[in-house]
Amino acid sequence: MKASRFFIGTLKEAPADAEIVSHKLMMRAGMIRRVAGGIYNYLPIGLRSIRKVEAIVREEMNRAGAVELLMPAVQPAELWEESGRWEKYGPELLRLKDRNDRDFVVGPTHEEVVTDIARREIKSYRQLPVNFYQIQTKFRDEIRPRFGVMRGREFIMKDAYSFDKDRAGLEVSYQKMFDAYVRIFTRLGLEFRAVIADNGSIGGSGSHEFHVIADTGEDAIAYCPTSDYAANVEKADAVALGNGRAAPAEALAKASTPGMAKCEAVAEHLNIPLERTVKSVVLATDGEAGVQVWLLMLRGDHELNEIKASKIPGLGEFRFATEAEIVEWFGTRPGYLGPIGTKKPVKLVADRTVADMSDFVVGANDADFHMTGVNWGRDLPEPEVYDIRNIVAGDPSPDGKGEIALCRGIEVGHVFQLGTKYSEAMSATFLGENGKPQPMEMGCYGIGVTRILGAAIEQNFDDRGIIWPEAIAPFEVVLCPMGYDRSDAVRAAADKLYEALLAAGVDVIFDDRGERPGVMFADWELIGVPHRLVIGDRGLKEGKIEYQGRRDAEAQLLDADTAAEFVTGKVRAAKVV
Amino acid sequence: MKASRFFIGTLKEAPADAEIVSHKLMMRAGMIRRVAGGIYNYLPIGLRSIRKVEAIVREEMNRAGAVELLMPAVQPAELWEESGRWEKYGPELLRLKDRNDRDFVVGPTHEEVVTDIARREIKSYRQLPVNFYQIQTKFRDEIRPRFGVMRGREFIMKDAYSFDKDRAGLEVSYQKMFDAYVRIFTRLGLEFRAVIADNGSIGGSGSHEFHVIADTGEDAIAYCPTSDYAANVEKADAVALGNGRAAPAEALAKASTPGMAKCEAVAEHLNIPLERTVKSVVLATDGEAGVQVWLLMLRGDHELNEIKASKIPGLGEFRFATEAEIVEWFGTRPGYLGPIGTKKPVKLVADRTVADMSDFVVGANDADFHMTGVNWGRDLPEPEVYDIRNIVAGDPSPDGKGEIALCRGIEVGHVFQLGTKYSEAMSATFLGENGKPQPMEMGCYGIGVTRILGAAIEQNFDDRGIIWPEAIAPFEVVLCPMGYDRSDAVRAAADKLYEALLAAGVDVIFDDRGERPGVMFADWELIGVPHRLVIGDRGLKEGKIEYQGRRDAEAQLLDADTAAEFVTGKVRAAKVV
Repeated sequence: MKASRFFIGTLKEAPADAEIVSHKLMMRAGMIRRVAGGIYNYLPIGLRSIRKVEAIVREEMNRAGAVELLMPAVQPAELWEESGRWEKYGPELLRLKDRNDRDFVVGPTHEEVVTDIARREIKSYRQLPVNFYQIQTKFRDEIRPRFGVMRGREFIMKDAYSFDKDRAGLEVSYQKMFDAYVRIFTRLGLEFRAVIADNGSIGGSGSHEFHVIADTGEDAIAYCPTSDYAANVEKADAVALGNGRAAPAEALAKASTPGMAKCEAVAEHLNIPLERTVKSVVLATDGEAGVQVWLLMLRGDHELNEIKASKIPGLGEFRFATEAEIVEWFGTRPGYLGPIGTKKPVKLVADRTVADMSDFVVGANDADFHMTGVNWGRDLPEPEVYDIRNIVAGDPSPDGKGEIALCRGIEVGHVFQLGTKYSEAMSATFLGENGKPQPMEMGCYGIGVTRILGAAIEQNFDDRGIIWPEAIAPFEVVLCPMGYDRSDAVRAAADKLYEALLAAGVDVIFDDRGERPGVMFADWELIGVPHRLVIGDRGLKEGKIEYQGRRDAEAQLLDADTAAEFVTGKVRAAKVV
Repeated sequence: MKASRFFIGTLKEAPADAEIVSHKLMMRAGMIRRVAGGIYNYLPIGLRSIRKVEAIVREEMNRAGAVELLMPAVQPAELWEESGRWEKYGPELLRLKDRNDRDFVVGPTHEEVVTDIARREIKSYRQLPVNFYQIQTKFRDEIRPRFGVMRGREFIMKDAYSFDKDRAGLEVSYQKMFDAYVRIFTRLGLEFRAVIADNGSIGGSGSHEFHVIADTGEDAIAYCPTSDYAANVEKADAVALGNGRAAPAEALAKASTPGMAKCEAVAEHLNIPLERTVKSVVLATDGEAGVQVWLLMLRGDHELNEIKASKIPGLGEFRFATEAEIVEWFGTRPGYLGPIGTKKPVKLVADRTVADMSDFVVGANDADFHMTGVNWGRDLPEPEVYDIRNIVAGDPSPDGKGEIALCRGIEVGHVFQLGTKYSEAMSATFLGENGKPQPMEMGCYGIGVTRILGAAIEQNFDDRGIIWPEAIAPFEVVLCPMGYDRSDAVRAAADKLYEALLAAGVDVIFDDRGERPGVMFADWELIGVPHRLVIGDRGLKEGKIEYQGRRDAEAQLLDADTAAEFVTGKVRAAKVV
């Protein structure tokens, strides 16, 4: 591609509403332009990268046996009424009426439409399994669209839906998609992790998110560097620390801890490790029989995980207790609460780690006092035990294969075992081998195509601009001739190099715009082209052409005769097929 | 592709709402499925053909120097308010409100969005010309969606928009697109014509429609088989017939023509050719000074073209005169009207052909009488002359290069010189070489991607199904093994052939579904795959494989060893690059 026949829209400054680096750089590199909140034009440079992502996604979906089709953006409300989501889906669902006053939506996802296809087309178990996918534009009316393509309203997704005759089949389909996603993100050249996601109502490992690792990611991920375990911090299983509960060694005692409402201060005052203290969190639930107060106990250095707490039977709709309730139930103010000697009965829940502790310290239900040498069974009844804390770096990995580390990630893919939720609601049944109709087992599998661009940039940039992985760079190589219009030698060498690279199948952009070298270099570093060749009279006198990789600190000189071969080799070496 | 890993959804019957052959066959072949009125799923077979159309369109657009980008489907109303189309566009514009009660549309076209891009990105004449295009899903809320993809509501279009610094530049850009369209439809393997379209407010040949020729087409086209002239019948220039006006040879006379209100009857009665009679059509316009009556005169065998009539100065808002008006102005009933001796003054307009006639026959303004031997100048004042008739087969072509023939066509593309309509309304200006801001000259160029499938089928089908042009067939070749699961010889030969065709880059579908031969053959004839190879034990015993082209009346036997080469040659020969 010659730049003079292309459109390059680089900007010196990003607009004020661009808050994160990928949004700023996509604007500055001329990849996107805002049309309305969360709605963008993909300019030619941006579209090139999108198409490269799509091509890899398509290849791997096909390789995994999925079949591409295309469903409409505008969907009739009837289907959403059947599934129940016309009522349940919030204002993110863009609803509209056609000229005949019939209800439609601009599809944020396609479970309803694809289930409708399946129930019409699939009659017999012989037609199963099947996995339909599409690469299509979606709309979600986000309340606060921002961060460019990361949280847009209109965006491109690959969405796939598998149909199986039973759970075993679904698990096979799911694993195929999981494996395809691993190949896809590997080929895209991204550092990523498959993260265990909330299972919802289905048991088993029925859902994984694929995250691109980036310091700026919105999700905190707990992972094990020595295994493939990874989970969202909010969902990661936090195991009991220590080697099981030791026998009591201390007597129960009341210690003066004046003004020490925090575990850290108590531990320092008593000269014990923070890991010997236990903090008390007071929750409440409102039932027909009145308020029920719950005391959740966590080790002094741990934090309550509210999602996990909400899954404890009875705590589904918890709230934090009011200060008045705390005084009524415990007779003292927060900071000195504990499980021993409450004024009114409370439900006691201990985190797994706390349940294994002995000789620990809790609030004394008396301001400025704590109890020491507390032991389960002796001083307190055995508690109900649940995982209620956030996992932290250094915890043992739940798979027993190492220690947890933390990182941040950007969700770019999601695989999910839906089961029969939609097939039952919409009567998508098939005749089984026993001749009886039964609902299809469904899975759904999404990849945020446009979001991948943002995530790739959040993972790969420097102060000059984007650093694209080869596979999704808008161009693989840029040729920068110095004085193309003035020097016959430069023109001849640049033209020859361009032809050689084209012939080798390299995706090359030839900057024939006649810009000054500074402008050319700044543009292509901003745009993030992985390989740059500079052709100038000075080098050509020595038979040399200058090469610099986008991540290289320095340029190197290549023999003009072998420069094309050298760069072609670099490009090919970077390809994962 | 193996059929067992694909999805084939052929149907025995088309649904009742499918009225035309392409709609029926696309349903039966499993290409599309209705989701709502005018909204379809493109099933895998349909999508394959769509992608092939898109690929050819994209290649030729790129070759012509256009640059691909992607604009959003959902567009803010503000842009449509700026262009004035928020008010002017009828209910075909699908309007909606987002969660913040802001107005949006689902884009039926993208002039507004692309003009917004141009005014932001293009500052100087140095950046011009530029031509942006996209292949994108559009929505038009048709009042009566029907005919499948031919008049759908949601559909895929290629839309391009050129920006130039002046009219000369626009004409160059327009010609490039015209040429690209010729290449595109040629490569698609369709019989088509570029048809002069209504110029609207711009002069010159500022607009062409591209029509696929088909007997079932909704538009009548006048074309010259010996030149490239073609125009919509309603817009084709009808020249004066005859060799100029002859001198009067007859005296004016009044002839009795009892009960003969039609020219045909008059001609027969008077024993003269129909071409000597003139019919009178009475129109009226309502102005501040009251009703104005117009008499339009056409040769007896010609028909009034209302679109042409409406372009005569003063007739822009014409209506047909009422019977009462006719009696008031002419003193007689329709069928015996004429230009001589009207009761009240009328404006006289003669068709070009009539203006060249002499000794002709008109109504006498007296029931059951006609005037004969009528001559301009002598019996009547010279009329105002306009082209007001429909062109007919046998007319001289307006380009003087032959005779007009008629055919029917389906519009699949449109190129249009917009001029400064949008750039002026939306202030899309650039700094010219003189340093002054001036509006960009725009052109727009559309291709109905999904509509092409329907048009291709209307042009190419038989009673067994679709007959795809090679370039857009969902598959180029189908392999039908007979008894693949039973015969080792068949299995070995079919597998070998499949591998050989894949290796040669042929787009082949291998029907390994295990269906009976009758089902296989019927499916692939319905789907319209151009080349079929049948591998069976009987033929293999003689070292033969059976080949049949979709248009062939008979199968032929090929040597098994050279069958792959033979078919590859057929496929390659059909390709236009």
